[in-house]
Amino acid sequence: MSFKINLFLSVILLPVLLVNSCKNSPESSTQPNIVIIFCDDLGYGDLGTFGHPTIRTPNLDQMAEEGQKWTNFYVGASVCTPSRAALITGRLPIRNGMCGNRRVLFPNSIGGLQKSEITIAEALKTSGYATACVGKWHLGHLPEYLPTNHGFDSYFGIPYSNDMDLERTEDWVNHDHAMKERKYQFYNVPLMRDREIIERPAVQTTITKRYTEESVKFIRENKENPFFLYLAHNLPHIPLYTSEAFQDTSLRGLYGDVIEEIDWSVGQVLETLRNEGLAENTMVVFTSDNGPWLVFDQHGGSAGLLREGKGTTWEGGMREPTIFWWPGMINPGVVADMGSTMDLFPTACKLAGADFPADRIMDGVDLSPSLFNEGEGLRKTMFYYRRTELYAVRKDMYKAHFITESAYAGDDNLMHHNPPLLFHLGHDPSEKYNIAEDHPEIIADIMLEVERHQSELVIPESQLDRKKSE
Amino acid sequence: MSFKINLFLSVILLPVLLVNSCKNSPESSTQPNIVIIFCDDLGYGDLGTFGHPTIRTPNLDQMAEEGQKWTNFYVGASVCTPSRAALITGRLPIRNGMCGNRRVLFPNSIGGLQKSEITIAEALKTSGYATACVGKWHLGHLPEYLPTNHGFDSYFGIPYSNDMDLERTEDWVNHDHAMKERKYQFYNVPLMRDREIIERPAVQTTITKRYTEESVKFIRENKENPFFLYLAHNLPHIPLYTSEAFQDTSLRGLYGDVIEEIDWSVGQVLETLRNEGLAENTMVVFTSDNGPWLVFDQHGGSAGLLREGKGTTWEGGMREPTIFWWPGMINPGVVADMGSTMDLFPTACKLAGADFPADRIMDGVDLSPSLFNEGEGLRKTMFYYRRTELYAVRKDMYKAHFITESAYAGDDNLMHHNPPLLFHLGHDPSEKYNIAEDHPEIIADIMLEVERHQSELVIPESQLDRKKSE
Repeated sequence: MSFKINLFLSVILLPVLLVNSCKNSPESSTQPNIVIIFCDDLGYGDLGTFGHPTIRTPNLDQMAEEGQKWTNFYVGASVCTPSRAALITGRLPIRNGMCGNRRVLFPNSIGGLQKSEITIAEALKTSGYATACVGKWHLGHLPEYLPTNHGFDSYFGIPYSNDMDLERTEDWVNHDHAMKERKYQFYNVPLMRDREIIERPAVQTTITKRYTEESVKFIRENKENPFFLYLAHNLPHIPLYTSEAFQDTSLRGLYGDVIEEIDWSVGQVLETLRNEGLAENTMVVFTSDNGPWLVFDQHGGSAGLLREGKGTTWEGGMREPTIFWWPGMINPGVVADMGSTMDLFPTACKLAGADFPADRIMDGVDLSPSLFNEGEGLRKTMFYYRRTELYAVRKDMYKAHFITESAYAGDDNLMHHNPPLLFHLGHDPSEKYNIAEDHPEIIADIMLEVERHQSELVIPESQLDRKKSE
Repeated sequence: MSFKINLFLSVILLPVLLVNSCKNSPESSTQPNIVIIFCDDLGYGDLGTFGHPTIRTPNLDQMAEEGQKWTNFYVGASVCTPSRAALITGRLPIRNGMCGNRRVLFPNSIGGLQKSEITIAEALKTSGYATACVGKWHLGHLPEYLPTNHGFDSYFGIPYSNDMDLERTEDWVNHDHAMKERKYQFYNVPLMRDREIIERPAVQTTITKRYTEESVKFIRENKENPFFLYLAHNLPHIPLYTSEAFQDTSLRGLYGDVIEEIDWSVGQVLETLRNEGLAENTMVVFTSDNGPWLVFDQHGGSAGLLREGKGTTWEGGMREPTIFWWPGMINPGVVADMGSTMDLFPTACKLAGADFPADRIMDGVDLSPSLFNEGEGLRKTMFYYRRTELYAVRKDMYKAHFITESAYAGDDNLMHHNPPLLFHLGHDPSEKYNIAEDHPEIIADIMLEVERHQSELVIPESQLDRKKSE
């Protein structure tokens, strides 16, 4: 019953909300295509151009040389569901209901991204964009939450993580099967096209390849219109799989094989754009949803010199290796300005000539000043949430930790800090040297940001914690 | 007295040794110039192209894009003196006497690089090269040990570390003055030209700038002949100094200012080579003597994802960010083959048409196969010594640690391992997952290498431990 009602509401409410928030802008041949390539659990240090010694990523290295390598680019949360919700809505998960005591959505979850949220795809559609979601969604697998009900013309991918649909879903720590017994048949994950399950279990060995083919096809079929492609790989999230061509080819072992296949995939997308004459009218962004899953031994990636990884609010959990590419438009270089996946929404709106939703608090800022060398970057703060609690805040170069907790599936080492720990992320990117004692004035300033932030915060029901009505 | 005798011996012996070991090859216009730029205590993760988020190194990044970024390049020891001796002689310090219980040479040392050693400069001189040493030497400050007695036509630099000549020289741990009271006047370090002290204390604030000017001048003055320039910066070894133009300019703070001045310096050298029409006939190598000095808080660098730093035989102590550049000759790319500073000697000999010394065990191998895409790299092993003991051995991708000891000036945490710890450096570059139990056959194979190595080892008197005769 509740499913039907939600579906009904979504159909009715969508146009209303968009009229309120997004101006229909005229279609124009200058509207650039937008491609977001989003990995799953890729570490800050896992690409050649970000310093990995044995993972070879020639396509991403070249993309960075031709484009911009962003070294202070954040995600909205350090685990899948809330991080993806942040990118898609341009809002912190605490505002859109996509965080909770359950860290992510599971196959037995009944919640998902609410229709009252406006997605980047919906906004771009009002500007005439063709939109496709290829890959992992993880914002709700029930029909009303699927991509095609959130502004995407089409969907091809898996609705949640590739390690789900196990009998022992909650068995995080001893995920031995994910490393040793890597049969994809062990994970009864569905592969969907639009709203239909077309394969179950999804044949994960060829999944990166098939996402790539699907993406290339979408680009070719839409080359006459502006388009938005959201290509969300479900790897290198464990369990790790590669197609045959990449098996045992990397110096880094299986994890490297997987990244090198993703690098190949990036090469295919960029080559298609070049061959179709679209490169100079397409902005491509490459990043990931959160840091490396360190508990998985050599199946987990590396955050490089950043501290910790997935699940934490240390930099290794939420700062991602990010590359922007748009030949002729983006000046090549390294950008140390702050940016966030939440900023892609307003940036895309601006480029597409679509209005930015005005009826709600948005957390994204327009990245144009940094991308096009027009001036100082607009992002000055970053809020680091874990579950529904504010753990840390960055303002300019300083980051204050109010709570720290290491590892994802780890120890009960939650610690409250008063005064907070304070790090200068420019001087000390590894968060090693607490300088709180020397800078009470900076902590005071950050506390003002926290007050401001919290004073306007309205927290909706957690979609992750929703249970079937009993 | 001993000085005069040594000087006498060196003048007599030099030609004999060289006749025995290095064939005089005809001078030829195709002999490439060779430039080695050698930093001091630079970490694996401290350059943009090796993943640092806030140190901007546009010149080195470009050098890496145009040339080869080597990700498995080692030094011969994890502290100054032995590491430099390894580069200069192409031999492990254990063979050339330049290691001991005293880790490096000090201003009160009486030892130095013996005349019986053949240096890379001496070898290249037999092929008609002009040779210059600019920067830090640290292979003996007494006259007979200086660069101009070891094959260099000229010398401009400081003879040992920039933190020496303090009253409390041995005060390693509480080197507070190096971080807080950074007056160069506090270090009575001499600046020398050839064999003369021309400034004391050396004005360290302008030292990188002056080394650069000296190098540019040498290149310009020798553009008609093949030349060898060994530009050994004495930074970012603490205490840190920059010239005015770089003060407070880096997002990384003082350490970043220093690296960015070195990056500027690299840019000056490469620009000079381009402007003088020498770029296509010059091989430039950029690397450092050992990893970052981690005990110095934010004045120390970062080894990125590698474990530990200076002074240790973990990767962070002995693997360095290395770039080869030779437009038109070296195929741009990332090279994961093993290489070592000891390999520069035979590689340079080959390029210059000079014979490789045949009367002694050399530890260097020719890097040409990797540099010029001619085949598999020749280096298969790496021996990691600390003081005079063999701590670890790498063979192919596997590294066995027989002894570990962390930090330079640190704890008494020396541990013997039997069986040794075993890491796969390709899969696990951070040396986190000991796989010794699973691979006894690999340990056995490495033990054979150790036996072979030790069976032919002749250890001379330690020059570092020599004391004034009493």
